[in-house]
Amino acid sequence: MFNWDDPLAEKPATDVVDNALLPPSQQAANELDTPEPTKASVSELPPLNAKAVNADDKRVVNGQADINQLAPFKYPWAWNYFLNANKNHWTPLDINMAQDVHDYRHKLTLEERHVYENVLSYLTTSDILAMRNIGLAVMEKMTAPELQIYQARQVYEEALHTWTYQHCIETIGLDQSEIYNRYRVVPEIYQKIKLANDRLDTVMRSDIDLRDKDELENFVMSYAFFAGIFEGSWFYNGFSPIFALQRRGLMKGTGEQLQYIMRDEVMHASFGIRVCKQIIKEENVKLDPKKIQEMFEEADAAEATYGGYILRDPILGYSKEAHHGQFRYTANRRAKQLGFEEPFPGAEATLPWLDEQANMRKEKNFFETKVTEYQTGGGLKWD
Amino acid sequence: MFNWDDPLAEKPATDVVDNALLPPSQQAANELDTPEPTKASVSELPPLNAKAVNADDKRVVNGQADINQLAPFKYPWAWNYFLNANKNHWTPLDINMAQDVHDYRHKLTLEERHVYENVLSYLTTSDILAMRNIGLAVMEKMTAPELQIYQARQVYEEALHTWTYQHCIETIGLDQSEIYNRYRVVPEIYQKIKLANDRLDTVMRSDIDLRDKDELENFVMSYAFFAGIFEGSWFYNGFSPIFALQRRGLMKGTGEQLQYIMRDEVMHASFGIRVCKQIIKEENVKLDPKKIQEMFEEADAAEATYGGYILRDPILGYSKEAHHGQFRYTANRRAKQLGFEEPFPGAEATLPWLDEQANMRKEKNFFETKVTEYQTGGGLKWD
Ligand SMILES: [Fe+2]
Ligand SMILES: [Fe+2]
Ligand SMILES: [Fe+2]
Ligand SMILES: [Fe+2]
Repeated sequence: MFNWDDPLAEKPATDVVDNALLPPSQQAANELDTPEPTKASVSELPPLNAKAVNADDKRVVNGQADINQLAPFKYPWAWNYFLNANKNHWTPLDINMAQDVHDYRHKLTLEERHVYENVLSYLTTSDILAMRNIGLAVMEKMTAPELQIYQARQVYEEALHTWTYQHCIETIGLDQSEIYNRYRVVPEIYQKIKLANDRLDTVMRSDIDLRDKDELENFVMSYAFFAGIFEGSWFYNGFSPIFALQRRGLMKGTGEQLQYIMRDEVMHASFGIRVCKQIIKEENVKLDPKKIQEMFEEADAAEATYGGYILRDPILGYSKEAHHGQFRYTANRRAKQLGFEEPFPGAEATLPWLDEQANMRKEKNFFETKVTEYQTGGGLKWD
Repeated sequence: MFNWDDPLAEKPATDVVDNALLPPSQQAANELDTPEPTKASVSELPPLNAKAVNADDKRVVNGQADINQLAPFKYPWAWNYFLNANKNHWTPLDINMAQDVHDYRHKLTLEERHVYENVLSYLTTSDILAMRNIGLAVMEKMTAPELQIYQARQVYEEALHTWTYQHCIETIGLDQSEIYNRYRVVPEIYQKIKLANDRLDTVMRSDIDLRDKDELENFVMSYAFFAGIFEGSWFYNGFSPIFALQRRGLMKGTGEQLQYIMRDEVMHASFGIRVCKQIIKEENVKLDPKKIQEMFEEADAAEATYGGYILRDPILGYSKEAHHGQFRYTANRRAKQLGFEEPFPGAEATLPWLDEQANMRKEKNFFETKVTEYQTGGGLKWD
């Protein structure tokens, strides 16, 4: 019934069950030396071939090892990211939002509402974009399944974050259409989204061949942007205005929701940075330091403008200057993790409470919100 | 700093915060009539535009409404699939596998081991393929975010299933490389994978334009194949040899793992079928009944060959004839759900216990395995 594209591999001479019970060294006798195809796209099925995948043949991109075989792992750390992420299960319904409804209506000042709504609007558009980046632009380019597996989890987590914002928007009773469309009304939000989307656009093109040096460099720059800046700095910093409210006992449910999201985003940033570094090493990529510096400066200018808008009137315990300063401090950390020069030498933490605030394990007793410890495994590193 | 691609929309005249509190009807005064772009790719950022998305403008494919805006929903049923799926959280670590290790070593016959290993090998390769289909071929073509959101969850569930097989393979102590590579050794498994992969190949091509009638028809056929046959029939049927062991008190941990997977797969099939029908309706797609019949017959022949291999020696309570018969019965159901003619008129259920076996809520007390009721919401429909 089928036209086999490739010569049929011989079946093991012994019963397959018995053979499977043999140690791998003794199975070698059954292996055929059918050569690997010289170029394999991820949607091309490898031929019948009794030779199992060799972990050393796996590569992050441009690999030719069979994408359908999870083990043997070449990147066990990626598999561990996946296992760890599964320990962090939560849904926005787990967190009580009743006090937030009351706070929003009766306690927040107009300036605080302005902060709250615009942050939500920025975050929800950003997270839809983050989902498309990882799910549609990045995952398809990976040629080792253990990397795709964590990214599959990440795609889901971005969707979960979208649900979380939707849950907040709905519960507080904001006008959904207006909040979702606000990024197209407020230029200071739009410019950040546009910066990310323009980069996404260059790596979603259908004719990209990562064996081309320039294309590969561009892809690594884009992934570094999304992991190091978009998720690792903008998101990291993006939650902090709400955390400032939370610290004052306001919008604590939303604050807790964002703590869960932030834990995910820190893992996304960390994973993406690790993958970028691995590609740079495996493919011997040379990035242009000038382009890197420009990328950070562009993001910095956009962040300053955004901060200036959401905090045009300062609120108690938070200012646009502190917001901007913290971005630079965080961006320096991400650049260092990526192996780049610090883009903003000397920048100091202007929100020294942020790291601790982000870590819900320390905050739970303080805020006396619902105690839910999803993290059942070993300590999760935050940075 | 930015070159705006499009004219800057006027900011609302009133304070944004106040404006947001107005009912939508009064906000209309602030809307600008910037026309929508005539063609928008999913990676193209829509321009600044104060006009919110109209749900009626959303379409499953070929839509032009802003992909970044979740609400207003046009497909609330898709959102409900997502909410429901989140209620089904589980991981393979929740299920005790100790007895399975003992069963495999001391109780299974050689024939039963042959069934067990080949089923696992088939399933794990299939699920990696399912992940790539939904994550890389289907999701990118959707132009309404509420559809992508469920598919993001589905991508993750496929990864979770891959973990589950890996957990079984590891716990039982099978040779991982050999199991993962077995589909390239056994032609009877390879042909099913190849059938699916060939179809996937036609919808992962980079130059597909779904505004083309033939391309769209081909995409719908492929999605119908993956939802109705690959997930809805092959998977549905794929678990049953292990369920047959489970019914006899053997490999009960694995059986329970597969019950969880099957619950997910039934939702995947059901969602995919619904999306296919929606596309057919919205885009007025005319499918060729002859091609549909051929698709089912090809799948049927592959299933018969596969069943003949895994059950070349029958095991207690299960035979290749029953396996094949049940495939035809299930395929008829899926065809009907898709609005197609029954491909195998008169086929009757040959595994009458399968539906009940699949439903773990009825099995829990019987098997006295760990009682874990993840389904916290309303009843989940199984078919
Ligand atoms: Fe996210
Ligand atoms: Fe993320
Ligand atoms: Fe699956
Ligand atoms: Fe599935």
